[in-house]
Amino acid sequence: MNRNDTTARIAHVFRGTFVHSTPRAAVEILQNCVLGVDDKGKIAFIEKHQDVVSLLEIWGFETSDIKQLGQYEFLMPGMVDTHIHASQYSYAGTALDLPLLEWLNTYTFPVEAKYKDLDFANDVYTKVVRRTLKNGTTTACYFATIHTDASLLLGELADRFGQRALVGKVCMDCNSAVPQYKESPILEDCYPNVKPVVTPRFAPSCSSSLLSELGEIANNNKLHVQSHISENKEEVELVKTLFPGCKSYTDVYLKHNLLTDRTIMAHGCHLTDEELEIFRETGSAVSHCPNSNISICSGMLNVRNVLNHKVKLGLGTDVAGGYSPSMLDAMRRTLDTSKALTIQDPQHKTLSFEEVFRLATLGGSEALSLDDQIGNFVVGKDFDALRVNVCVPDGPIDLFPGEGPKVILEKFLNLGDDRNITEVYMAGRRVVPFPDT
Amino acid sequence: MNRNDTTARIAHVFRGTFVHSTPRAAVEILQNCVLGVDDKGKIAFIEKHQDVVSLLEIWGFETSDIKQLGQYEFLMPGMVDTHIHASQYSYAGTALDLPLLEWLNTYTFPVEAKYKDLDFANDVYTKVVRRTLKNGTTTACYFATIHTDASLLLGELADRFGQRALVGKVCMDCNSAVPQYKESPILEDCYPNVKPVVTPRFAPSCSSSLLSELGEIANNNKLHVQSHISENKEEVELVKTLFPGCKSYTDVYLKHNLLTDRTIMAHGCHLTDEELEIFRETGSAVSHCPNSNISICSGMLNVRNVLNHKVKLGLGTDVAGGYSPSMLDAMRRTLDTSKALTIQDPQHKTLSFEEVFRLATLGGSEALSLDDQIGNFVVGKDFDALRVNVCVPDGPIDLFPGEGPKVILEKFLNLGDDRNITEVYMAGRRVVPFPDT
Ligand SMILES: [Zn+2]
Ligand SMILES: [Zn+2]
Repeated sequence: MNRNDTTARIAHVFRGTFVHSTPRAAVEILQNCVLGVDDKGKIAFIEKHQDVVSLLEIWGFETSDIKQLGQYEFLMPGMVDTHIHASQYSYAGTALDLPLLEWLNTYTFPVEAKYKDLDFANDVYTKVVRRTLKNGTTTACYFATIHTDASLLLGELADRFGQRALVGKVCMDCNSAVPQYKESPILEDCYPNVKPVVTPRFAPSCSSSLLSELGEIANNNKLHVQSHISENKEEVELVKTLFPGCKSYTDVYLKHNLLTDRTIMAHGCHLTDEELEIFRETGSAVSHCPNSNISICSGMLNVRNVLNHKVKLGLGTDVAGGYSPSMLDAMRRTLDTSKALTIQDPQHKTLSFEEVFRLATLGGSEALSLDDQIGNFVVGKDFDALRVNVCVPDGPIDLFPGEGPKVILEKFLNLGDDRNITEVYMAGRRVVPFPDT
Repeated sequence: MNRNDTTARIAHVFRGTFVHSTPRAAVEILQNCVLGVDDKGKIAFIEKHQDVVSLLEIWGFETSDIKQLGQYEFLMPGMVDTHIHASQYSYAGTALDLPLLEWLNTYTFPVEAKYKDLDFANDVYTKVVRRTLKNGTTTACYFATIHTDASLLLGELADRFGQRALVGKVCMDCNSAVPQYKESPILEDCYPNVKPVVTPRFAPSCSSSLLSELGEIANNNKLHVQSHISENKEEVELVKTLFPGCKSYTDVYLKHNLLTDRTIMAHGCHLTDEELEIFRETGSAVSHCPNSNISICSGMLNVRNVLNHKVKLGLGTDVAGGYSPSMLDAMRRTLDTSKALTIQDPQHKTLSFEEVFRLATLGGSEALSLDDQIGNFVVGKDFDALRVNVCVPDGPIDLFPGEGPKVILEKFLNLGDDRNITEVYMAGRRVVPFPDT
């Protein structure tokens, strides 16, 4: 309760219920607390309300500055989408009738080729940034396309609308139906909360020399890396054929210096325990994208096994292999997949909704190596947060007498949608409702 | 195009795109058509728009009576929820951490006991009827509780708000943690679109004599029958122990004359091919409740196999084992389960979204033996319909240039919600928006 930085002023103070995760507790519910955000967007304090008098003194705000949350409201950390293809958003909710490799050739590559047209890119990227913000995604780890200008535009839009983002210009130089995909430069680093991420599409579409080059760029510049791994079985077999000198799919990325503690690999449905060991040793993370994995019949990741291996794991929507641009859907589908594994094997220890909540918030921040900055309500972290109201007019949830905060949280996670997310903050800035609406 | 009934007048005429299913086509998209509804709530005509002049003459309506659907609008049949526990709606979205038999004892029986209090019943039943109507469920096959007064109230509320319903007062007399559940009378038949359904809870909670009695009541009065069957493996084993004289779970209901062509049995995840043959022979139907089956880890029904056996099949939300009171969710989870089966066995023929659309509409009407009255847009059937607009302000769907009606339908099915269902009709009566809002 010390005010270390004498230059910081308080920009927001909330009083009410706060829900977040800690390394020890999958869900911690803090009732009747006060949380202050300084003018740099960082959490200044989070304390029991009984201490408000001394907080007023130390921080120099007025009682009238306090925003009181209602009985059916709480604040939770902004959600982290660790894998989403901004460029595929135009056909989200369609085209889910083919397995991965055919799906890429039939639907994805032709659409992604359109991003040489910046007007098209602007339309789609504006909509995907706004939609995901509205859905409570304060941090998104994006795949764009091979097009530098359109990728830069995506970064600019994320910055403008106020979404924390990693933006990856896709790199690929072989085995694609679209030959012009051969390029490799990366997004420049020019916004405070938008960063580039080195993005080889996936091993089958990259030559060994491209992978090496990207590994070098990432390591020399301490950049994030993202790609896909072991999404479906056919792809795993293909990688064996394409990289006969590598012991496994994971070994391909390892050999090219692409597995670092700033690496996030999507899917991993078919990773072996030996491969998970390499993830743990290198500090690389897995992005679990259950909607996509089910929708295009790729496989079912055993998240419990990944967690048991102490591998970092976040959730991703994987739009448009996943049809939903909502992290609430990603949470629900994560539970579904875990329960489907329990149906197959009653010994499987099903994930709880509390654990899944953690994966969508703190887990995602760890997977992106941003947990020193975001992921939960800890003094000094950026205030990335959602104001949730489960009782909005015309909302999707019915309430009944006597429901406490845990039931309210569970109803929101199972039944809520963007209507219940009444405000979104990124680094202390209110970004939803949009200023223009 | 003949006007047979000279007393009928036209109450509504719509022009635009109509989407429905037929026995031959899982999805039929009729563009630039006109559909008329008479003042008895029945579909009077559905024709190409070029024939509108003769329709005006025959039916005596004015051009100004025609309601023009917009570019992003279509009409579709109202959805049929073939299995929903109205009495469990208060805890929908919570309490999904236990398997069936423990779940019943821990969560369900204590809550259901509260329905002796009519105020409580009124609150929950009002909310579930309104919520499901808003979600586009024009027909619901409800489980109530053992309480006669509360069950009658549910029927009254369905009638008042304008939902077609089968209402079942639950019957059970043994193996329950709640001893007062021993009763067996049924809801009276007093509303035009609300009917009683004979409702033994499930074999484990009914004595052989109760089952016989209910079979007799159903057959003597030509009433519908609903119950549960083969939901999870533990339950199947329990039924073997409780009814040692029966060859299978299906045989229990067969022996007690409860399998008729007006019977609908929920779940059936673990039915054998021999049991499905009995369903086909008796004309009994299966209600597939995928959200529930995944959420409480009951099993995964192979819908393709059921359809291959020519057994009637509809979809159900199974609130509150299923957390969602939306048939859109039931459709999505049906696809998920089918895709999960494909992941396990690549030879499995995955359901298409078109097939699932049919199951939620025409399939449900067949499963409830109401397909002579509802299920699709056929002259003479009741007009149970949804006006869908995928482009509503603050809606959940983003559109992009050049999307045709099939893409628009698919986006609605994957991404839409109640915001996109702008009007709901039951038997020609507009029931949503609610008259009071
Ligand atoms: Zn992806
Ligand atoms: Zn049920």
